[in-house]
Amino acid sequence: MHWLRRPIWWDERMAFPPDATLTDAGEFGLISALTEVFTQGEQVLIGPGDDAAVLRVKTGHVVVSTDLMVEGRHFRREWASAEDVGHRAAAQNLSDVNAMGGPADLPVQWALDFARGFADERALVGASVVGGDVTRSDQLVIAVTVLGACTQAPVVRSGAEPGDVLAICGRQGWAAGGLAVLGRGFRSPRVLVEAYRRPEPPYDAGRVAAEAGATAMIDVSDGLLADAGHVAQGSGVSIDVHRSAFEVPEPLQAVGAALGADPLQFILGGGDDHALLATFPEGSVPEGWSVIGSVAEAGPDGPAVTVDGAPYEGPTGWVHF
Amino acid sequence: MHWLRRPIWWDERMAFPPDATLTDAGEFGLISALTEVFTQGEQVLIGPGDDAAVLRVKTGHVVVSTDLMVEGRHFRREWASAEDVGHRAAAQNLSDVNAMGGPADLPVQWALDFARGFADERALVGASVVGGDVTRSDQLVIAVTVLGACTQAPVVRSGAEPGDVLAICGRQGWAAGGLAVLGRGFRSPRVLVEAYRRPEPPYDAGRVAAEAGATAMIDVSDGLLADAGHVAQGSGVSIDVHRSAFEVPEPLQAVGAALGADPLQFILGGGDDHALLATFPEGSVPEGWSVIGSVAEAGPDGPAVTVDGAPYEGPTGWVHF
Repeated sequence: MHWLRRPIWWDERMAFPPDATLTDAGEFGLISALTEVFTQGEQVLIGPGDDAAVLRVKTGHVVVSTDLMVEGRHFRREWASAEDVGHRAAAQNLSDVNAMGGPADLPVQWALDFARGFADERALVGASVVGGDVTRSDQLVIAVTVLGACTQAPVVRSGAEPGDVLAICGRQGWAAGGLAVLGRGFRSPRVLVEAYRRPEPPYDAGRVAAEAGATAMIDVSDGLLADAGHVAQGSGVSIDVHRSAFEVPEPLQAVGAALGADPLQFILGGGDDHALLATFPEGSVPEGWSVIGSVAEAGPDGPAVTVDGAPYEGPTGWVHF
Repeated sequence: MHWLRRPIWWDERMAFPPDATLTDAGEFGLISALTEVFTQGEQVLIGPGDDAAVLRVKTGHVVVSTDLMVEGRHFRREWASAEDVGHRAAAQNLSDVNAMGGPADLPVQWALDFARGFADERALVGASVVGGDVTRSDQLVIAVTVLGACTQAPVVRSGAEPGDVLAICGRQGWAAGGLAVLGRGFRSPRVLVEAYRRPEPPYDAGRVAAEAGATAMIDVSDGLLADAGHVAQGSGVSIDVHRSAFEVPEPLQAVGAALGADPLQFILGGGDDHALLATFPEGSVPEGWSVIGSVAEAGPDGPAVTVDGAPYEGPTGWVHF
């Protein structure tokens, strides 16, 4: 390997020509360049550059989650800039660790732009990127792992009780509308396309909900009805979602009219906004959250999700395989 | 999504026909089946099935690392069984969290075999698989994140001092020999092919080395000389590797003769055995470790790795891009 005899010096790190590919940069050139993009928080004892990172945590518990993104499946380069995708990946994961694979002819600039978007987004919650991994693949692949500390008892999917109400916080359906528009080759309504490219998850809402006594919580990543289904299944309850609880925003109405579709399908089936969905005892719903349904005992056929009391015939979310 | 109205019941989980694909199984069917494969350790407060896992840790520090594997680049399905690849992935990562992407027509059985191999390997160190992620991709992709707790001060790459000796623990070059054999369409020497398919990392050697006072340590994943180079670079020293320190095992001699290659190149450039490489103050090398080189001050051209005092002209390791 070249770098043993010709090391990449600090001042050469960013000196890639604008059309340099990953092959031109090499693994260590890319890693050096990425390392410069991610500044480290004070909880990081050992950051990137060693076999593993070492972090200081305040409590005796660690929270960990992981994710995979594959080009063509989760994002398209012609539909969003690298920086946009960086924001999206971080918004999805609030992440400390990420891994990326890309074709050898991927422009280095794309990787650096991705890193910048990612760095900007994780700064919103004070997270650090403490390590990662790069590899070659025919498809561009991004894997992200997130670590956090619990400062209170975690709110899981399995705590919803009959009599609770279902509530949501954050935009819902905007990104799905933007995706539908992009899929038809359009670029407007711009506000929906931007919502897809750079979601704005309600980062503080989870803490607020936990403090208010939320009994179950999930982030809407598969689709509103699909994720409500995860809560129903996990808690052994049935959930009814009320159509009348949603005010369909004007740009979604416009897309529905243009595509001849019920605009409510973007809200009920969409997931890319990363809204939070939670159940609360009646009367405990905090400010910023909207009640959109109710929780009841599971029927004879087991846990289920209904819309206005009936099975929903439209798409309820994302199908992975 | 189907499962909301037709949930996957426990007793249906493993009932895939032998030729079922990922599309047949669906995301949640696959996850349910995988969850059954991985039993949880007592340090796991919340395991798979929620948005994130929660673990109990004994110290106030967390160690995290991440990895990516891509079919065709890191493994070939025609060269090793799914269970073999499962062992390899776990051996590489001693992992708690993994993510996997695969083509829609990937047999579910392959994913389950992979999981079984992975589960068996991580059991060697008492690790748990606490979560993961699956997605569709044209290429099969596997991403793994490992978490651990530090029970003593971590030994990093940057602590090697002039006057130290370089030592190795574990098989080295066997997997590279096996890979060379497979690449030519052969299946023997069997012991080398097996070494490639199921590496046997010296899991306890890291702790032993740390207790003996190792000044720097790295696992050989890129190649012996390449990883020695990471230590040299990180520590600002030069490292000389001594050819005479290696006894070339008989099967490697046979492969060298058959392919017309210097068998030492598998030892100096190979990485898939996951041996451990460390530097020690002279006289501190623990049992089970072999001295293979020496550490000196960096020369006028900066940190470097030499073999018997001269630059090495063969391949020193794996080139990622």
